[in-house]
Amino acid sequence: MSQASTSNQRIVLASRPKGAPTADNFRIEQVTLPDLVDGQILLKTLFLSLDPYMRGRMSDAPSYAAPVEIGEVMTGGAVSRVERSMHPKFHEGDLVVGATGWQSHGISDGRNVTPIPSGLPSPSMALGVLGMPGMTAYMGLMDIGQPKEGETLVVAAASGAVGSVVGQVAKIKGLRVVGVAGGSAKCKYVVDELGFDACIDHKSEHFAEELAQACDKGIDIYYENVGGKVFDAVVPLLNAKARIPLCGLIASYNEHEAPSGPDRLPQLQRTLLTKRVRIQGFIVFDDYGDRQPEFISAMAPWVRDGKVKFREDVVDGLENAPQAFIGLLEGRNFGKLVVRVARD
Amino acid sequence: MSQASTSNQRIVLASRPKGAPTADNFRIEQVTLPDLVDGQILLKTLFLSLDPYMRGRMSDAPSYAAPVEIGEVMTGGAVSRVERSMHPKFHEGDLVVGATGWQSHGISDGRNVTPIPSGLPSPSMALGVLGMPGMTAYMGLMDIGQPKEGETLVVAAASGAVGSVVGQVAKIKGLRVVGVAGGSAKCKYVVDELGFDACIDHKSEHFAEELAQACDKGIDIYYENVGGKVFDAVVPLLNAKARIPLCGLIASYNEHEAPSGPDRLPQLQRTLLTKRVRIQGFIVFDDYGDRQPEFISAMAPWVRDGKVKFREDVVDGLENAPQAFIGLLEGRNFGKLVVRVARD
Repeated sequence: MSQASTSNQRIVLASRPKGAPTADNFRIEQVTLPDLVDGQILLKTLFLSLDPYMRGRMSDAPSYAAPVEIGEVMTGGAVSRVERSMHPKFHEGDLVVGATGWQSHGISDGRNVTPIPSGLPSPSMALGVLGMPGMTAYMGLMDIGQPKEGETLVVAAASGAVGSVVGQVAKIKGLRVVGVAGGSAKCKYVVDELGFDACIDHKSEHFAEELAQACDKGIDIYYENVGGKVFDAVVPLLNAKARIPLCGLIASYNEHEAPSGPDRLPQLQRTLLTKRVRIQGFIVFDDYGDRQPEFISAMAPWVRDGKVKFREDVVDGLENAPQAFIGLLEGRNFGKLVVRVARD
Repeated sequence: MSQASTSNQRIVLASRPKGAPTADNFRIEQVTLPDLVDGQILLKTLFLSLDPYMRGRMSDAPSYAAPVEIGEVMTGGAVSRVERSMHPKFHEGDLVVGATGWQSHGISDGRNVTPIPSGLPSPSMALGVLGMPGMTAYMGLMDIGQPKEGETLVVAAASGAVGSVVGQVAKIKGLRVVGVAGGSAKCKYVVDELGFDACIDHKSEHFAEELAQACDKGIDIYYENVGGKVFDAVVPLLNAKARIPLCGLIASYNEHEAPSGPDRLPQLQRTLLTKRVRIQGFIVFDDYGDRQPEFISAMAPWVRDGKVKFREDVVDGLENAPQAFIGLLEGRNFGKLVVRVARD
């Protein structure tokens, strides 16, 4: 049976960035999709998630995941609607989440495509607080951070998709929570809206001193998602037996060679030893994929009851994804960054 | 009742080292001990333990333990015999282990003094395989390393007090074990006597390549007790989900400022993240003091049955302790370094 041909707009990797990505590293293309065959579904992208880890996929340096090849569609999670189905488990109109990438349409065999939970205020939440960033926040905090009432936690990018959830869950668990964010508007939001005990502006001239003042009992958990100067300011404040879950290093994603000295590694090693610190990297779905039900059953009620709030930064139009992503790496977003690819 | 006065020979910290310690940093003294009062015991030192952590106590940089003050007796564990007792729990002739320091005699109120297990071939084993170094090896490997059959473990200072035990316990647990040691005599001992699968000489010109060849399936556990170039060679070989128990950094103990660049910290952070590595510092008695019975009940039969072998490097005479300690930091000892302070 013949099918109406589908035109697909997509953004491919045109070249690998050296340092910060530029618009030249991306290319927008228009292609015609092949007909569906048995077992496949045609997906129309509604929301595309933009996340810092994507910078790693643009490089061919060894990493935990294969890079995007030159000319290939940029990878990424998205919320889509099933437009046509030749797969027994999916029906036209279903809303799903999957790794369909930076494009207006996708064809899938149903693997790694999941129905989104019903009753969400916006389906895009499946890309945020109830999706990969929320689960990254929750699992790193609970499993590696092991929060205890009365302890002090610091998290950077505190208004972002991961940091905002880390801090709010830590507040629920009874910790003192100090955020770090860029600029007074974000800091005000973190304290007034999200309920953190304090938030320090990393653009402040006296950032390290202000962080030390806000953490007058030291730091028991540093949830690491940025690296760079926040890490440097945190290390001297760590308490004995501190834990550092490590899920991201956005501050250094654009570096392509070792920075000049001094060499800070020996000092870190000494701190890990003398303060008996645990630092542990993790990749959420690889390490905790089997614990997704636990995460959803904890987080969904918190979100429903307003105990965990969540802010989105929505950019309209797939063609604007590259600029939005470049801004994300510079901290220009305010909240979880998503691209609205289609309105219906 | 009057007591015979006791003359005590002791070694005090004369000055703080800058970089590697020298003989000038120590001073030998002869003093007369005060009379015992009720509740005290007089101890005669038989064996003094020399361990790398003592370098940290000579500095006043912030650390997990207070420094030795100028003019104070150097701290250290020792096996002693009770010479006189005014304490109900101790009797003349008892053999005990305690932190009595670098001196021929000590007075104690019995706190932190423990009878040594009976039936040891030599009482000095309470300072080694069945003492602090052995327990450091065991707890770091078992609790943080979490060894699994078939995995590959690397440990440096493989002929030393900690490394030799780490490797032998890992062999008992079914791992492939690769040691690192300085010089062919130590490497031969580690393979032929201790039963490691391989041992690489860190003085070799092609050390990193040889380590990579010996770890053809990568490294799952790196038991870190040295830091420096061994750490650098290990990092690129780490497997996903590798664990790094960190108990010492002998290679950098003598550094007194941050080395010049390049800055290796960002690269380490990236490795921790992309390979989801866990690195954790620990101080054995602070973190695992309550698990000493578990350690003894595991280790004592292995030692008795010859499954864990143990080599001592015995130096005669308290006056030779400073030179022996300086040599320890340079790797000149071969086996657990102890000073025989008295023969009876």
